[in-house]
Amino acid sequence: MQVTFVYVHVKKAHIQEFIEATQENHVESVKEPGNLRFDVLQNADDFTKFVIYEAYDSGTTAAAHKQTAHYLKWRETVADWMAEPRKGITYQIICPREKSKW
Amino acid sequence: MQVTFVYVHVKKAHIQEFIEATQENHVESVKEPGNLRFDVLQNADDFTKFVIYEAYDSGTTAAAHKQTAHYLKWRETVADWMAEPRKGITYQIICPREKSKW
Repeated sequence: MQVTFVYVHVKKAHIQEFIEATQENHVESVKEPGNLRFDVLQNADDFTKFVIYEAYDSGTTAAAHKQTAHYLKWRETVADWMAEPRKGITYQIICPREKSKW
Repeated sequence: MQVTFVYVHVKKAHIQEFIEATQENHVESVKEPGNLRFDVLQNADDFTKFVIYEAYDSGTTAAAHKQTAHYLKWRETVADWMAEPRKGITYQIICPREKSKW
């Protein structure tokens, strides 16, 4: 199991469109085999900053996300709305250890 | 509902002790009223860096965590193991909106 934090900085004028496109991506992503969470979060002090909290049961299922039609559509849709390149940081899971608790 | 990311940088010599103390804190924290998640994560590229992903159903229940006996014990236990001060960043939740999905 692993988690990737995807840090996203969106141009102010495109915040609402970004939220809508990412909600759509969330709905499909949580249906993927091996997906454990796909939380979409907005920084409370800076509404242009988001984090997508992507938990998968393996590196393989996490990598497979980037081949899905919904991810590829999202990537293309949001491309011009980025204020800077996205950054992903991967974490291993200490707690909870049980897959059923994800 | 809100999420706080607590970024923790631990002295290398104390990584294992930090993990054990934080696992204990996790077990009690997920029992708190209003707690939605309390994920403990270790950076895959730098084992001295951790994030605690704390989701609560309100700012009130999130704040109450810091008054619990298990939090206060954890705070005291880990104090000398910090390589730098902890940093918390608060996010509002875009997805999933339904509390039942947390």
